[in-house]
Amino acid sequence: MKLLRYGEPGHEKPGLLDADGAIRDLDGLVDDIAGEALTADGLARLRTLDPAMLPKADGAPRLGAAVGRVGKFICVGLNYADHAAESGMPVPEQPILFMKATSAIAGPNDRLALPRGSEKSDWEVELGVVIGDVARDVPVERALEHVAGYLVVNDLSERAFQLEHGGQWVKGKSCDGFGPIGPWLVTRDEVPDPQDLALRLWVNGHPYQDGSTRTMVFGVAQLVSYISRYMSLHPGDIISTGTPPGVGLGLNPPTYLKPGDVMELEIEGLGRQRQEVIAHG
Amino acid sequence: MKLLRYGEPGHEKPGLLDADGAIRDLDGLVDDIAGEALTADGLARLRTLDPAMLPKADGAPRLGAAVGRVGKFICVGLNYADHAAESGMPVPEQPILFMKATSAIAGPNDRLALPRGSEKSDWEVELGVVIGDVARDVPVERALEHVAGYLVVNDLSERAFQLEHGGQWVKGKSCDGFGPIGPWLVTRDEVPDPQDLALRLWVNGHPYQDGSTRTMVFGVAQLVSYISRYMSLHPGDIISTGTPPGVGLGLNPPTYLKPGDVMELEIEGLGRQRQEVIAHG
Repeated sequence: MKLLRYGEPGHEKPGLLDADGAIRDLDGLVDDIAGEALTADGLARLRTLDPAMLPKADGAPRLGAAVGRVGKFICVGLNYADHAAESGMPVPEQPILFMKATSAIAGPNDRLALPRGSEKSDWEVELGVVIGDVARDVPVERALEHVAGYLVVNDLSERAFQLEHGGQWVKGKSCDGFGPIGPWLVTRDEVPDPQDLALRLWVNGHPYQDGSTRTMVFGVAQLVSYISRYMSLHPGDIISTGTPPGVGLGLNPPTYLKPGDVMELEIEGLGRQRQEVIAHG
Repeated sequence: MKLLRYGEPGHEKPGLLDADGAIRDLDGLVDDIAGEALTADGLARLRTLDPAMLPKADGAPRLGAAVGRVGKFICVGLNYADHAAESGMPVPEQPILFMKATSAIAGPNDRLALPRGSEKSDWEVELGVVIGDVARDVPVERALEHVAGYLVVNDLSERAFQLEHGGQWVKGKSCDGFGPIGPWLVTRDEVPDPQDLALRLWVNGHPYQDGSTRTMVFGVAQLVSYISRYMSLHPGDIISTGTPPGVGLGLNPPTYLKPGDVMELEIEGLGRQRQEVIAHG
């Protein structure tokens, strides 16, 4: 299934994408694409529905963030060996974790207003893992059972805020709009191998990132298991698994976003995002 | 007002503490001590209630975390000059921010099960600031208007996970149970000066921390303003403002929690927490 949320910001309704690419309304069948609806039981209930029997959404509504009520947005740093190299940092021996504020979450095609004072806003296409059933201290070989599905994340990053304003990375990762997720959550059964997905990102049509999840340092199952040793994972939590090479910070000279730029990003089988950059509002 | 949540974990009801120290039931009057109830308008509505007219809670119920549906749990590192010194780190020039997973939040008197493999779990009494009205890019002089109130936080920290397992601090701050908040949220009108509160913490009756918010490097208004430049703050978000000296890491030799230990902590006017430490469950 491809699950999504559509409608105006703060008033999104749950829906699913049918085989023809039309949005079918799940309003009244689940309260949201969130929480219990994402557990194995919740998804099994949704699978009993016949999409053809559900009402079609009118027109071409805005897509919201594909998951609601996200409790934690956990990011993994330097998880592609060649991205670590372009950042001038060693490949980590253990996953590097940091958090992105959940208030940064945005729809996949929402315009991105640069934060006030930003001169170094940068892109990062990433595979996002959405937790289904609670995970606490789970072994690697059972870890994927706790995954509801996958989605595209743009882990937007203000490099000056992240690296020059003192302290921890969260400061450069959490600005409003810095976490577009979607267009939809693709359930795990439709992603046979999360370690064999192409990821790509363009700015103004120029291809900057073109990688594959094959080159992750720590794979999805390892990450879910590892993180679940440090904190419990709950339905709707998101793990963003790191970015392949080609971010603006790694270019020579470094290149950052400016008003008028358009980012497009996609992951094989998970759909495409598009964000237009605008000046600070 | 002193607002609280009581009942079994996951089923807490909203309440308030009356002048005699009894819990009055707010069930049906607010959905939770969370979100809209914490805005200036929400608190004004609660102030119109006469506590004497509300039903008393039966018996001596468990206290839950004083705030529900916390969106962000933002912590400030090394925000007391003498705690920075005991940690062997310089006093920061800008606030150091890091996140604690909201899944770490616990009731003020819940038992603390040590994380699996933990040998360096440590205590930190901190003043917690609860956001009331949305704050985006607010100036210092208006910042306190966005504060609903204050509460006691124990910013529990596993020092090996935080400092020896690679990467960012969040790994040692986010274990389940590592964020007791409460016993209650004391609304801002009852805390005339958040920069003049005594904070104390004992382990097994021995006083380890005995400080005052007077010696914070960055005060509450500065922190709210500063953080709101990097991310929007929403009702129920919590900022934990750093700890005074006396944590286990800073002792010679360092001293950490073990099963059977009892932590007690209090902040002037904000009440008292008590946690018994037990082995990994």
